[in-house]
Amino acid sequence: MSAVNHRFELAARPVGLPKPTDWNYTEAAVPEPAEGELLVQVRYISLDPAMRGWMNEGRSYAPPVGIGEVMRALAIGRVLESKHPAFSPGDHVSGAFGVQEYAVARGEEVTKVDPQVAPLPVFLSTLGMTGLTAYFGLLDLGHPQPGQTVVVSGAAGAVGSVVGQIAKLKDCRVVGIAGGVDKCEYLTKELGFDAAIDYKSEDLGPALRSACPDGIDVYFDNVGGEILDAALAQLAMRARVVICGAISQYNNTTPMRGPSNYMSLLVNRASMTGFLVFDFAARYAEAIHEMAGWIASGDLTSREDIVVGLDTFPDTLLKLFRGENHGKLVLAVAE
Amino acid sequence: MSAVNHRFELAARPVGLPKPTDWNYTEAAVPEPAEGELLVQVRYISLDPAMRGWMNEGRSYAPPVGIGEVMRALAIGRVLESKHPAFSPGDHVSGAFGVQEYAVARGEEVTKVDPQVAPLPVFLSTLGMTGLTAYFGLLDLGHPQPGQTVVVSGAAGAVGSVVGQIAKLKDCRVVGIAGGVDKCEYLTKELGFDAAIDYKSEDLGPALRSACPDGIDVYFDNVGGEILDAALAQLAMRARVVICGAISQYNNTTPMRGPSNYMSLLVNRASMTGFLVFDFAARYAEAIHEMAGWIASGDLTSREDIVVGLDTFPDTLLKLFRGENHGKLVLAVAE
Repeated sequence: MSAVNHRFELAARPVGLPKPTDWNYTEAAVPEPAEGELLVQVRYISLDPAMRGWMNEGRSYAPPVGIGEVMRALAIGRVLESKHPAFSPGDHVSGAFGVQEYAVARGEEVTKVDPQVAPLPVFLSTLGMTGLTAYFGLLDLGHPQPGQTVVVSGAAGAVGSVVGQIAKLKDCRVVGIAGGVDKCEYLTKELGFDAAIDYKSEDLGPALRSACPDGIDVYFDNVGGEILDAALAQLAMRARVVICGAISQYNNTTPMRGPSNYMSLLVNRASMTGFLVFDFAARYAEAIHEMAGWIASGDLTSREDIVVGLDTFPDTLLKLFRGENHGKLVLAVAE
Repeated sequence: MSAVNHRFELAARPVGLPKPTDWNYTEAAVPEPAEGELLVQVRYISLDPAMRGWMNEGRSYAPPVGIGEVMRALAIGRVLESKHPAFSPGDHVSGAFGVQEYAVARGEEVTKVDPQVAPLPVFLSTLGMTGLTAYFGLLDLGHPQPGQTVVVSGAAGAVGSVVGQIAKLKDCRVVGIAGGVDKCEYLTKELGFDAAIDYKSEDLGPALRSACPDGIDVYFDNVGGEILDAALAQLAMRARVVICGAISQYNNTTPMRGPSNYMSLLVNRASMTGFLVFDFAARYAEAIHEMAGWIASGDLTSREDIVVGLDTFPDTLLKLFRGENHGKLVLAVAE
């Protein structure tokens, strides 16, 4: 092949919000697959808050992306060439292909996806790590019981909107916290949330007290900061706080804000637990099967916010941190 | 009876450390027991960090002590007069008798203690709520496994010293964090801790890394603040953080400091859980029986720091917040 592989390499570790100069947009030769590998043409790239963490130096659940390395990203692509017996050209696969047009991956590192089941971007969204994160975080860590109150922050985002909808399927009272009237209306009018709180215009404490008269049994946190503190102040007895993310804190140039109200865990005999979806890999298939059924029956709405053009990546990523995305943010790369 | 009941009433809600003027030391008539009640002469009063919280206005696990009310305290006393069939004069009982010389209580609200089993102050210490807090917090919330690393803060204090000793009995590696060389030597030389860290003179991060080469599996927190943050930074995978108290924060005049490193819960799939010993009331007898056995066999050392004189109460209480007590702080009231 003589095509060119455009890609984004990490040029510098960002301070605060990533800047255009934190990236190098480069051209490289399209790589050749070795035995056991596939050449994949990337079609859709998942943009996730977690990417901000991968850009930092230091210990976390995954090693940092090295300076000069292609930016890590989950993606969906089409197999162009296969040197692995389980895959053929034309197959669609998901994997950590990075922010680039072409990737080589070992067959064991990718998962086949079926475009007959759902549009491809949905496999980065509700039927991908995003939906699985919502599913296992809510059900396995939150243990919501019928009639209990579930509150989710970042509720109009990719994970939050799935958390809330699954909680409704489990017969919970569901309250979403989101930024802006449009997002809040989307939650209550289109996704069936019982209530939504606009953190940009409402006073969180009174709004949560009013929306959760019996307190919060499950709080699924995507944002951290003052919203986490407000939720901690309203816990019900034996509440479960599920820590999924802290997007409000990822671009801090000052130390992360810890939850001042954490002693509410003691008063209410409550727990706060962190998790990573990767630990549930053995049950991905089961969860995807169940969620695909809910999508087919109309019980679960998957919404993707698709931006076209690999070259828009540095700016498109910032939509996440500005709260400008509506649903799962996906970069469309090839037709 | 014509005797006088000396008592400490709460005069004002403290700002920061309690001041002498936050109390009124008053004299009242010795109360008369009604049917079903006992008159108790208070002999030993338990001084606990939690008392600081009871002095604040606002929602917590127990209602605040009202202004003008006798300060709440657990205590041990001798029955002087009984109008309850289960008790006789001369019996010793424990209950929430308050900071005073005489109390009236309903028979159902007190527990008989046997001075043959242990000296009376031990029933406020290892064989009282203090020891029970250590026992259930460590075993039922921390789930320590043989070979795992247990770290406890406030380790030379009443709860911490019992936590560490029980963890040793469960074949864990035990690291205590305490303030000062004397306390640290007490932990390693007298109580058998594997290591002790003097937070007043050591750099906590490196000291914890060195003392816990495989990370922290169970962190039992009595102090909050920067020590909690340092421990969170060293968690092992699937660690359990048990929130028992936050003595470093109780006298803050600024908002409580939240744990900035709480996202370590996510990276390490760890949990942070609060508890109150009262939820384990159905198992108190079982736990006291087991701990009394450990005391008898010499496996568990109970240390009390006894200060004589009810009138010293306002100043003696401050020993807790200055870290000046060695073991369980108890006020001796009557002979």
